[in-house]
Amino acid sequence: MYPRALSELIKAFSALPGIGPKGAERLAIFLARENEDKARSLAQAIMRLKAQVHVCRLCGMLSTSQLCPVCADEERDHTLVCVVETPADVAAMEASQAFKGVYHVLGGNLQPIEGIGPAHLNLGPLRQRLESGAINEVLIATNPSAEGEATANLLVRTFKDSKIKFTRLACGLPMGSSLQYMDSLTVSRALAGRTRVEEAEE
Amino acid sequence: MYPRALSELIKAFSALPGIGPKGAERLAIFLARENEDKARSLAQAIMRLKAQVHVCRLCGMLSTSQLCPVCADEERDHTLVCVVETPADVAAMEASQAFKGVYHVLGGNLQPIEGIGPAHLNLGPLRQRLESGAINEVLIATNPSAEGEATANLLVRTFKDSKIKFTRLACGLPMGSSLQYMDSLTVSRALAGRTRVEEAEE
Repeated sequence: MYPRALSELIKAFSALPGIGPKGAERLAIFLARENEDKARSLAQAIMRLKAQVHVCRLCGMLSTSQLCPVCADEERDHTLVCVVETPADVAAMEASQAFKGVYHVLGGNLQPIEGIGPAHLNLGPLRQRLESGAINEVLIATNPSAEGEATANLLVRTFKDSKIKFTRLACGLPMGSSLQYMDSLTVSRALAGRTRVEEAEE
Repeated sequence: MYPRALSELIKAFSALPGIGPKGAERLAIFLARENEDKARSLAQAIMRLKAQVHVCRLCGMLSTSQLCPVCADEERDHTLVCVVETPADVAAMEASQAFKGVYHVLGGNLQPIEGIGPAHLNLGPLRQRLESGAINEVLIATNPSAEGEATANLLVRTFKDSKIKFTRLACGLPMGSSLQYMDSLTVSRALAGRTRVEEAEE
């Protein structure tokens, strides 16, 4: 029913993550009806991205240079490596302004059902970094989901013979939440991870 | 935090319908990490779409020629016009293989809260087609939503002085559904639109 060029764009959009056939159809029809500038600027932004943005050769973050700004920053603590699933997780950590170490981006998490195993993760370069002896602590910041937990376990198992300290982001109640509306798994995690209240120090 | 080319692509994706800031971030990161072929083929598909696909000058459907295949088909009944909201609705009607008339694509529906009024719909060309005298019946196939109903009412009001017969797609139970799980508005529509059971004719 649709012109070939429209069907092909629908197919190209469908291949992107989180876009189903109906969503792809809506996007392609939207672009077909919009003025040419909007479509051209989208196409150009895609090509500019591929021309300018690369993967940092050390940590796997996206960057315009061979080393990303964090890896190139000598003020950061290069003995502390935070392992995350995706570049978006790096952005979230940086937005907190609470982390002074460096990163390692795995590029995903373990999803056995989808056939995504350890070989699909950016583990080789992480091993090299850990074996260099320059790293004291690995902060595992994979997501608190089944896949993220499995990935965290894989990391600890893989590098268990090293002398490096492995830590994990705390799980518990998010700020601004209500205990009564929280799911029971989060409540049980918050309970298990309860911390001692100290007297406020001056 | 992100390279400029990445931020700009996130912004371009966010401008598309149904894609929020987080979805746009995920898409852009996906393309940044994929091999260049995938990104290039997407960019090229967008540019090819704009080069090849236009709006049919008669009905507003998307087509590679000035007249879409339906409008150009002399076998179709050109006295019967089905008015739909979007090109995707034309595709759905054609997939049913039950409609032999031609189409008119409004390009949306009335959304007063979003500031989308009659001026945003493809009504002028519809008026011209109706005033040509060649059309006997207008089948209104806007969606059975509040916006679609308002749009249908607008059409009937706008063209009430013409001698043309206006019809509307039937509302009722969808095939394969269960009465017990159906929302009560649909049940009341099915009741109001009940049809007489005739003896099967040979």
